[in-house]
Amino acid sequence: MEFKGANILSVEQFSIEDIRTILRVAETMEPYALPQKKTRVLEGAILGNLFFEASTRTRLSFGAAFNRLGGSVRDVVGFQFSSMAKGESIYDTSRVISGYVDILVVRHPQEGSVLKFAQATNIPVINGGDGAGEHPTQALLDIYTVYKEKEKNFDKLNGLKIGMIGDLKHGRTVHSFSKLLSLFEDMKFIFVAPEQIQIPDKIVNQIKNAGHAVIQTDKLIEGISDVDVVYVTRMQEERFNEKENFSSYQGYYTINRQIYDKYCYPQTIIMHPLPRDSRPQSNELDNDLNNYKNLAIFRQTDNGVPVRMALFALLLGVVDKIQETESNVQWYVPS
Amino acid sequence: MEFKGANILSVEQFSIEDIRTILRVAETMEPYALPQKKTRVLEGAILGNLFFEASTRTRLSFGAAFNRLGGSVRDVVGFQFSSMAKGESIYDTSRVISGYVDILVVRHPQEGSVLKFAQATNIPVINGGDGAGEHPTQALLDIYTVYKEKEKNFDKLNGLKIGMIGDLKHGRTVHSFSKLLSLFEDMKFIFVAPEQIQIPDKIVNQIKNAGHAVIQTDKLIEGISDVDVVYVTRMQEERFNEKENFSSYQGYYTINRQIYDKYCYPQTIIMHPLPRDSRPQSNELDNDLNNYKNLAIFRQTDNGVPVRMALFALLLGVVDKIQETESNVQWYVPS
Amino acid sequence: MEFKGANILSVEQFSIEDIRTILRVAETMEPYALPQKKTRVLEGAILGNLFFEASTRTRLSFGAAFNRLGGSVRDVVGFQFSSMAKGESIYDTSRVISGYVDILVVRHPQEGSVLKFAQATNIPVINGGDGAGEHPTQALLDIYTVYKEKEKNFDKLNGLKIGMIGDLKHGRTVHSFSKLLSLFEDMKFIFVAPEQIQIPDKIVNQIKNAGHAVIQTDKLIEGISDVDVVYVTRMQEERFNEKENFSSYQGYYTINRQIYDKYCYPQTIIMHPLPRDSRPQSNELDNDLNNYKNLAIFRQTDNGVPVRMALFALLLGVVDKIQETESNVQWYVPS
Repeated sequence: MEFKGANILSVEQFSIEDIRTILRVAETMEPYALPQKKTRVLEGAILGNLFFEASTRTRLSFGAAFNRLGGSVRDVVGFQFSSMAKGESIYDTSRVISGYVDILVVRHPQEGSVLKFAQATNIPVINGGDGAGEHPTQALLDIYTVYKEKEKNFDKLNGLKIGMIGDLKHGRTVHSFSKLLSLFEDMKFIFVAPEQIQIPDKIVNQIKNAGHAVIQTDKLIEGISDVDVVYVTRMQEERFNEKENFSSYQGYYTINRQIYDKYCYPQTIIMHPLPRDSRPQSNELDNDLNNYKNLAIFRQTDNGVPVRMALFALLLGVVDKIQETESNVQWYVPS
Repeated sequence: MEFKGANILSVEQFSIEDIRTILRVAETMEPYALPQKKTRVLEGAILGNLFFEASTRTRLSFGAAFNRLGGSVRDVVGFQFSSMAKGESIYDTSRVISGYVDILVVRHPQEGSVLKFAQATNIPVINGGDGAGEHPTQALLDIYTVYKEKEKNFDKLNGLKIGMIGDLKHGRTVHSFSKLLSLFEDMKFIFVAPEQIQIPDKIVNQIKNAGHAVIQTDKLIEGISDVDVVYVTRMQEERFNEKENFSSYQGYYTINRQIYDKYCYPQTIIMHPLPRDSRPQSNELDNDLNNYKNLAIFRQTDNGVPVRMALFALLLGVVDKIQETESNVQWYVPS
Repeated sequence: MEFKGANILSVEQFSIEDIRTILRVAETMEPYALPQKKTRVLEGAILGNLFFEASTRTRLSFGAAFNRLGGSVRDVVGFQFSSMAKGESIYDTSRVISGYVDILVVRHPQEGSVLKFAQATNIPVINGGDGAGEHPTQALLDIYTVYKEKEKNFDKLNGLKIGMIGDLKHGRTVHSFSKLLSLFEDMKFIFVAPEQIQIPDKIVNQIKNAGHAVIQTDKLIEGISDVDVVYVTRMQEERFNEKENFSSYQGYYTINRQIYDKYCYPQTIIMHPLPRDSRPQSNELDNDLNNYKNLAIFRQTDNGVPVRMALFALLLGVVDKIQETESNVQWYVPS
């Protein structure tokens, strides 16, 4: 795809070459994300950071990424958007706000709504999550994480074995990430979940049609004992309906130090899209793993910044101009 | 008036020369608003953007305007301002916050409250809307819009014929804009509304005393068939009281493609302060006009940025310094 | 203490030399806070300004201070932090957000919670108030205020006589400030409050053990008639429990012009941490004193900016680099 001026709406829009481009650019963003260096490339540019559904971490990650490129951020937060309450269409809202800013990030509780935002404006729009729909930047930071953990060798992403654990029905992260991984070759997916909250058939078929191996099971051990990556997810309480009976799944799987040491390869990395549910009755990923070097969950969230910087730089066409205004950071940064 | 250090509280404070100044400066802001160029003239300056009543579009427009001049923005949003809930006076709130920032924009649900903010501080204060009171920057962007649509010929604003349609009782925008237009010569106003929500006599008298023609009617056709500008407004549901019976006026007038083509001059422009109510039962301005070149409503909202930039530059005395730090924008901007 | 990279969690962490350092650096920040000059020393740096409990003035003061140093600010406001509601631990929240920013300010309703934030990250964390716990930056701006009112002579802080009036039980400001003052020599404290809301014994013992004089009384006159500083506080309605019966203390003490003129020395200064409760039935500090030169309450709140700038500059290690990027402010600043 041509990135300059484009929208990021769904993982389905990417080719394997697009992924390669994004990872390559994200890598060049690392010094500015850490930060060791700073740049003023987007000085004067404005991000409209529209979160019609609360998601503090994602909002901050996008905002910080834009700041690290030198730009300014205008935030909208909250369920009640006054104009929309007065009968304003998404078309008008998008068109009006796009007159104030250079690029939009939109998170919205309603599936498909971000596409409507994009259709109403000619500035780039990035989907920050639309209900049960997509969350493409999470999938991109996930794949960037695997890439970095695998010695930054893009080809080593082929042949990956990954176990995905937990609420695979409601977790859109798993859906988006699986589709992205399917762009590579010879993958093996092990989906571990109770039958009622297993991954939708539609996703499984898409993966199989792309020529990859799929195992579905409710046994934790099968998903963690012969894989490169264990991808743990939270039981998404807020998306369960009454019939689905959340409480019977809370705490269904727990991975802790003892289980990891007993069943996992010493090089298997553990990922989680966060937030993890650390309440004792949930605890899908125990705190006793916090200092394990293969626990990649915090490196993973850190990776959101360079990946989102890469997208901003690509969509706004400034990848080649970043170094022109760079200088070293002079304030204290912990090593 | 002397702009440097002044407050913008009401349209009644402006002379015709003041309007000329604001429009002239707004015009010079266009390259920085689009943006084709950027400036750092207010780098280091801080706007206190205080919205005690939600108004996302107005808040973003002011914030973006300040960012485009290189400044930083600190936002306050929400009905519950903790200190005020603890018995703090407006005087104290204003005085305290003005110790942190260089200029204040205040929106407040209570008429007259922004004046109180201004009285407590010596930094400039701009009224961003105070209840049923004033919204002077909306009126300024409205007149700037007519000016631009009329080939940027200030003298052509004289002799204007304008039809104002809808909820003329509760819509403070119509009140402020009418007062501003009355500064010009030989104007003709046609106010179209059901009798119960017609424009207040006080405004009509003010216009007539300034020597202009006024027609009041409830017939839509009279307000759109022989005018330069059709100014449509929303039925302001939230300001109706029970006795006024909102539902009997919802959808009372609709302008759409068929009506425009049949009754309007081909050069008549359509304005709307937005948000428009696009619910099927309301629909005062139909979406089928969205691509008509004479539909000025989105150019109108875009104009809010250069107009607000002009006010910031005038009040902070930097109009002549903007070019000193300017440079070309290097990121992608859609044409 | 070594400031670079440190946390500011409690006034108890400071030595008298630390206070001297902070006041000295705060003084050098004045030109940038007024602002007469601007600096870009923290251009590219990001403050995470996390207010899990509403406190608009404190949030704005920290944010403005960071902006005045050239940095960007990402705000979080609100009682409901979505991830925490989903079972996320403070450890995870802190670790995740610290991957986006360079320094954190945290205000939280729960005592001890800011310490937990600090333990989870290696970037500096500043306590912006944690429930009934600490509010160290308020105490620092209070002592900076006395220092400035006393001709900026650090040694003149020794031997100070101070009367503290009002709700001394719930007001953490009084607790923190008293502890800080105890670092000096030969102080005299007069605590004026009804017995039920007098200052806790623990604080009194701490002061006495440091060798200072303490008087506790419920008579206003004793606290204001022979002192250098009268420090008035608000009855903290929101922290009273039912048994404590707030209404019987509302309006218990009032200081106004008549009382000041009759009982105070002409050089006695009046301080208040703000907000003051200006409702007629409360009115601990009357508006008729607003123009008295010894009413220091607004100078006191203004002082929050240079003090917080000093902390940012110290913790991020840029005190010596501020002048490198400085220039004169060119916009209108009232004298």
